[in-house]
Amino acid sequence: MYSSKPVTHVRRMLLHRVLQCRRKRSSAVAAASNVKVVNDVRHVRGEYGCVTDADVRHFRSLLGEPNVLTGAENVGPYNVDYMKHASGDSGLVLRPKTAEDVSDILKYCNDRSIAVCPQAGNTSVSSGSVALFDEVVLSTERMNNIINFDPVSGVLVCEAGCVLDSLMKYVDGHGYMMPLDLGSKGSCQIGGNVSTNAGGIRVIRYGTLQGCVLGLEAVTADGTILDCLNTMRKDNTGYHLKHLFIGSEGTLGIVTKVAILCPNLPKHVNVAFIGLDSYDKVLKLFSIARAEFGETLSSFELLDNTAVTYVESKLNFLCPITNVHPFYVLIELASSQPTVGQHMENVLEKALGESVISDATTTDQMSSIHKIWKVRETVIEALLKLGYVYSFDISLPLSRFYEIVELTREKLKDFADVKAVCGFGHIGDGNLHLNVVTSQRNEELARMIEPFIYRWTSKYRGSVSAEHGIGLSKTQYLEHTKSKAAIDLMRSLKNTMDPKCILNPYKVIPAVAASDQ
Amino acid sequence: MYSSKPVTHVRRMLLHRVLQCRRKRSSAVAAASNVKVVNDVRHVRGEYGCVTDADVRHFRSLLGEPNVLTGAENVGPYNVDYMKHASGDSGLVLRPKTAEDVSDILKYCNDRSIAVCPQAGNTSVSSGSVALFDEVVLSTERMNNIINFDPVSGVLVCEAGCVLDSLMKYVDGHGYMMPLDLGSKGSCQIGGNVSTNAGGIRVIRYGTLQGCVLGLEAVTADGTILDCLNTMRKDNTGYHLKHLFIGSEGTLGIVTKVAILCPNLPKHVNVAFIGLDSYDKVLKLFSIARAEFGETLSSFELLDNTAVTYVESKLNFLCPITNVHPFYVLIELASSQPTVGQHMENVLEKALGESVISDATTTDQMSSIHKIWKVRETVIEALLKLGYVYSFDISLPLSRFYEIVELTREKLKDFADVKAVCGFGHIGDGNLHLNVVTSQRNEELARMIEPFIYRWTSKYRGSVSAEHGIGLSKTQYLEHTKSKAAIDLMRSLKNTMDPKCILNPYKVIPAVAASDQ
Repeated sequence: MYSSKPVTHVRRMLLHRVLQCRRKRSSAVAAASNVKVVNDVRHVRGEYGCVTDADVRHFRSLLGEPNVLTGAENVGPYNVDYMKHASGDSGLVLRPKTAEDVSDILKYCNDRSIAVCPQAGNTSVSSGSVALFDEVVLSTERMNNIINFDPVSGVLVCEAGCVLDSLMKYVDGHGYMMPLDLGSKGSCQIGGNVSTNAGGIRVIRYGTLQGCVLGLEAVTADGTILDCLNTMRKDNTGYHLKHLFIGSEGTLGIVTKVAILCPNLPKHVNVAFIGLDSYDKVLKLFSIARAEFGETLSSFELLDNTAVTYVESKLNFLCPITNVHPFYVLIELASSQPTVGQHMENVLEKALGESVISDATTTDQMSSIHKIWKVRETVIEALLKLGYVYSFDISLPLSRFYEIVELTREKLKDFADVKAVCGFGHIGDGNLHLNVVTSQRNEELARMIEPFIYRWTSKYRGSVSAEHGIGLSKTQYLEHTKSKAAIDLMRSLKNTMDPKCILNPYKVIPAVAASDQ
Repeated sequence: MYSSKPVTHVRRMLLHRVLQCRRKRSSAVAAASNVKVVNDVRHVRGEYGCVTDADVRHFRSLLGEPNVLTGAENVGPYNVDYMKHASGDSGLVLRPKTAEDVSDILKYCNDRSIAVCPQAGNTSVSSGSVALFDEVVLSTERMNNIINFDPVSGVLVCEAGCVLDSLMKYVDGHGYMMPLDLGSKGSCQIGGNVSTNAGGIRVIRYGTLQGCVLGLEAVTADGTILDCLNTMRKDNTGYHLKHLFIGSEGTLGIVTKVAILCPNLPKHVNVAFIGLDSYDKVLKLFSIARAEFGETLSSFELLDNTAVTYVESKLNFLCPITNVHPFYVLIELASSQPTVGQHMENVLEKALGESVISDATTTDQMSSIHKIWKVRETVIEALLKLGYVYSFDISLPLSRFYEIVELTREKLKDFADVKAVCGFGHIGDGNLHLNVVTSQRNEELARMIEPFIYRWTSKYRGSVSAEHGIGLSKTQYLEHTKSKAAIDLMRSLKNTMDPKCILNPYKVIPAVAASDQ
């Protein structure tokens, strides 16, 4: 379905539409090129219907004129992704207000075999939320109502287009917090978070969205509104269908409502910034932290010296520790117990005495806590000021976590244009952000380094995408984490739930090689 | 596929086998009746192949003679369920040792269209783990190896047949605990726990298995071994396939290996047993407990006076509080912080002063903690000594949680044989165990009370099975929690993954009414 040589029955079904489409190249919203190469992968436009003037009129009657955007000026911002790595050729953006609107749109598009690219906050870093060719962009930005918050259970029910930061502020007012926190919280939407199973800096404490989302409503390719908007913590009635939509990046359905369990706001938050001599000592500190801090540990983040150096030099942030160390760790404890700060100091003092750590500073003051977090949160921003960033988001067993950064440095030592190779990330979740910076994109380097890192990740049963998803940019590496049988099952589920493959095509599932058909 | 009038292509495929089966009624393992009525639902044996002497020989060559059980004496125990509500007519039990064995068995059964009933610890209380007709029982009891435990990450990898209690003891030795705890831990197996998304008394703290299971290996109906045995906390590479097998009760595949995240053992555990005057005060105490105890709250359990009375009179346990109260709450705090016990006492003292609670006793002594937990854990045992137990395991919004117990009492007030109506359960998870006890099963009462309770649950968007699953005994009530679209999608997934419907037939998905075909 994703290939340059589509499955026969689909070919037949769509043939008349393609012919019709070719005749209508002068229509309001015409497709651009039928072939695109992204990250060395050649994509051929599927045999989808093209959007006609009549379609635009239909959508206007459905959603109202202001919610059907055409023309380069209006559609442009929806065609460029967050990383500016990909740009789409969509000529039409639809802005539904309700699940019923989404249902009407998908029913129509499914009948007409028009491809659809769902878009929430458009903060995907895997080019998952922009069109590749002329897919219709379905934006959830107007579906932004909070439906209910239960102050006894802490369950929030809201529409998919609510911005994460606004939800954070809302539940904060009730003494609760969102179970996830991301750098992009100011613009990402909860429906996008759920569709991509977004992770972030609190997974160690609150787990992934697969655990926190109690229920959801989604619209499937044929327009069926699937109500799985359970608000109970326990519900063992048949297949747990919500999980089909959490992390499938809009390829199996469009999430329209979410019920999510919010934890209580902690009363006491303490943060430490710690310098260490070696990665082995980082691991030792992690074991101590898990055993000592237990349920109060809410973050355990690693930064190497390269990352901290560029945050200091490019953003003029001061590292909370003045002496230079090869590694830094940020520990956050959040608790109902007032003793947690003293406990942290006692444990770190002991670790200092035993030379597990070399230096540390701790605080329970919110302004200082924010400053320390800024150092961790702005690494990518600092690297982007340095040049072009090849960003890898991988999971690895902790024993292998930093080795790949050193191997990558070694591998690239003869590339003159490499400005930095640095590693940082969520030790608590085994999630490494490995970054290579050059002055500008170099295809030769990309061709060498991507397979190198992903093969190594695969060798140690890591994940080639810990939290960023597959999107458009990693389909060719999916097989490094998923077995053939698993990819076959993914295809089979996709075919069952979206037989015309109208939902977010070209994404997530790799194109079938011609020889495999 | 589940109906008395199977879908045509399956009918055709199986016809020659049925004829063959009818001719071989004298074979080693013959089917009994072709029709059974369970809980007023009429089940007709699907048109499956019957097990022949040649099949038994084949399985013996595959697994070795001792692992292929035939004859009433050997097979008998596998045919009776935990609640003694259901008994199967299986004539053959297979005991594979490896995933490859399971694969070989399923490949063979799929080719021969022989139905298979997967069985782990056989502790299902929804008749999900015994055969209904002559399905071959596939027992995972010999697949009981621990594969790996990582003391840094706390990730346990083991085979599906490991008994929960033995895993608890194993990880305890490493300073960790299993994230779930169940009354049946002495015999239930982790593969069964995962396949049924088992809940228990720690869900409030550690969430469900959908969140704790990092990866699994499962064998699908055609014998494909699906390796999703991820051990990373974060892995966003395509569809999260493991969730298809968590909670689908063996109808989409047989879980053979599990990777599960274990939390650190808490250093300080404190338990309180509290008497309260009204359900409103229980809710008030729950709000206080969530806000005050936050992350340290590991259980918040409710018992009504009826439940406690029978635990005292039938099992000779002493209620930790001597005065009688309409409601009792058990609170457990588990923490890394030594102050948690004092904190609990301060909070309860304040609640006593404000008349939120009427009485309380607290302890940090393990022997006393075990005694208090016994009162909560033995309610069902006490009720079974009283008579026949109609057991309902429902989720409800907390505001409606106890109302249904009172409504049920009212509804049954004229039934002479009703000995007790009691409610207990996990307030923290909205999960109520509502029980009605009579001297013996009364069909008239069952016919009245089941739809009454499930319709009421549905009205308030609760779940008709919070943690016990659907199994065989609740298929007719699935529609009270799942929408038609959701049930249709379940059927569609089942048909995609198990087109001959050989895996745990008659369970989970309701039979299609003849009129709907």
